[in-house]
Parts: sequence; C-alpha cells; structure tokens
Amino acid sequence: MKGHFITFEGIEGCGKSTQIELLANWLSARNISVICTREPGGTVLGEQMRALLKNGTVDTFFSPRAELLLFESSRAQHVDEKILPALQAGKDVLCDRFFDSSLVYQGSARKISRSDVEFLNNFAAGGLVPDLTILLDIDPEESLKRLSLRGENIDRFEQESLQFFEDVRGGYIELAKKNDRFLLIEGKQSKEDIQNAIRREYISRFE
Amino acid sequence: MKGHFITFEGIEGCGKSTQIELLANWLSARNISVICTREPGGTVLGEQMRALLKNGTVDTFFSPRAELLLFESSRAQHVDEKILPALQAGKDVLCDRFFDSSLVYQGSARKISRSDVEFLNNFAAGGLVPDLTILLDIDPEESLKRLSLRGENIDRFEQESLQFFEDVRGGYIELAKKNDRFLLIEGKQSKEDIQNAIRREYISRFE
Repeated sequence: MKGHFITFEGIEGCGKSTQIELLANWLSARNISVICTREPGGTVLGEQMRALLKNGTVDTFFSPRAELLLFESSRAQHVDEKILPALQAGKDVLCDRFFDSSLVYQGSARKISRSDVEFLNNFAAGGLVPDLTILLDIDPEESLKRLSLRGENIDRFEQESLQFFEDVRGGYIELAKKNDRFLLIEGKQSKEDIQNAIRREYISRFE
Repeated sequence: MKGHFITFEGIEGCGKSTQIELLANWLSARNISVICTREPGGTVLGEQMRALLKNGTVDTFFSPRAELLLFESSRAQHVDEKILPALQAGKDVLCDRFFDSSLVYQGSARKISRSDVEFLNNFAAGGLVPDLTILLDIDPEESLKRLSLRGENIDRFEQESLQFFEDVRGGYIELAKKNDRFLLIEGKQSKEDIQNAIRREYISRFE
C-alpha cells in the first residue's frame, strides 16, 4: 500500500502552506497517515542547501545553472531520504514545491532550456512523479502585495521583478493545461473554498 | 588571447597540490599570469558546498545523486564566476580536480551511469573542456598510507574503502587512455621529476 504524493505549487504568497496544513489536519482526522515537507529542504542537508539558495540579494551573482543544480541536489536527497520511505510506509506526503518549480523558475523565468530542466528533474527525482499537483494561481501583483504585508525578511527570489513572477505564473498555467495530474485553483477565493476544492479532488482521485 | 585551462586529477594523497604550486611558481617566473583554484569550491558559494560535501562520516546518508548534483552545482558557479573570466583575461588556470573527478568518483566508484555523469558534466561546465589534464597515478595502498601519515582530520571521502579507491584509480586510467588531453604520470617518482615532466608537456603543447 503506497501513500499518495501530493505537491503544492504557485508563486510566492499564494497560500500553499495554509492549504497544506488544512489538508493534513483533514487527512489525520480521517486516520490517514501524512507527513508535510518542503523544497528546497526537507532534510538536514537540504535545509542547509535551502539557506545557500535563499540567502543574498537579487544582485548576488548566482550562476543560473548552479542554482538549478543546487535545487536538484536538495531534491535527490529529499526523495531518497524522506519522500520515498514515507510513501513506501503507506503515508501520504504533502510537499510545498517539487520539480514543477524548477521548470517554471529556472526554465520559464531564468530561461534554461526545458529539455535540460526535464532531464535534471527526472534524474534528481529518480523517476518519481507526483500523483496530484495543486496549483494555487494568483496574480503576481497580488503576490507582491501579500509579500509586502508579510513584513518579514524578503529572500533572494522574493526580490525578483514583476516580470519574473509573470513568467513563472505563465509557465505554471502552461504546465497545468498539459498535465492531468494538475488541479488549478483560483487563489483569490476564500481559504475554505480552496480547501474544499482540494478535498473533493482528493476524494475523487484516490477513494 | 585565451589562457590555458589545466586540471590536476588523482586519488587522495597523489601530490596534486604540490605540483600545482610548483607549476604556478614556474609560470609566474616566466611572466605568465596564472591563478590556482580547486573543486569542489573555488568561490565563496562553492566553498560552502564543499563543506556540505566533505563533512560527516562515510556512514552519513548522502544520496549518490544528491552528491553528484552538489559537485556539479559548485562546478557551474566556479566556471561562470571564476574560471571563464580568468581564461578570457588571458590567465592560465590551474585547477585541483574538475569534471573527470565526477566521472570516476560518482561514475566508476558510486556506479552512477556514465552517460548521466557526462550530461551533467557538460551542463555544469557550460561546454568548457580542459586544455590539458595531469593525472598523478599512485597505488591506492600508497594513498591510504600517505593519508594516515598526514594525521589531519580525514573527510567523508577519505574514509572510503580500498576497493572504492581502486575503482576510482581504474576509472582514471581508462579516461587517460581514451583522451589525448591527459598526461598520465607515475606519482611515485620524485616531486622534481614529476614537475619536470609537467613543464615539458606545457612547453610542447602550448609553446
């Protein structure tokens, strides 16, 4: 009995973490074992890579290929150390970002060729593909507004331009149109409406 | 006028750093601009990745794919930030390890497929290939003896088994046989004899 691997995608401030928490609570209440994790990170080693990826400012020189390869390294460790063992133990895994983020951030926005990113995604994930991917779609202007309201330190990615986030969003929408494993949800709806849509999808796909 | 890109390879304790220093002194004395660098590392970001790669013990769980991808990330940053700008400024670059290390450590020894490592090497290096690669060949038993004499802390790789280093050495010899850019030197000769062989090769290839 293998668990379900469910990934959450979307631009900064789209509400992924809130929805992951609500879904985990609902699954637990139904006696389904679940773990929540995130990328980059999710393991001790991966969280150290996360810090290297997020630190600095938008002007720090970070080779785009080095950035992509560091995300992929964190991913390979995450899959082998945490995600696969949990799925094999029958647990559902809810993951805040997975390889679709590399396709849109490093592919659509940083302009690394799609076939190179796809090769690296497949290599790093060891062939693992999510069973369901929830895309929370919000307008990039709304994203920047939510980020500024949050008032925390803004990381290297969050300092990117409106154009960058428009490229990311466009990449996500294109992926969602082409892949049946995606559920695209309008992120400007209420938390409750979004969560209900996710729960209905879970039931219809897995029960 | 592009500088020459010269890489040094071999198992632990083979004498790479000594030979790099002697060659850099000789080049400088002949008014040839030169920089010495190393992998993993060579940049601020890359040295942080180096620490992640070397820390821990041989029993620490490090996914082989994550390890390879982290070396490649450090390499991409190194090429873009440091190696290419130096070569374009007409400087010779002497580098302690480059992508051949990935072919033999992660390929021959950790058994990741050669075509995957070659793809990643080419992607990370952005197509850059060394002009000359010096392979200092020593017996793995000699390597372990030199490591134990050094008496410093032994890193995660240096704790590997004799079999591991035999696989690495075999991989290197195979590469050297197939690629004209290699000069294979017997590492048990005196420092001076080794350095003289390297200098003769430099003159015959580049002057």
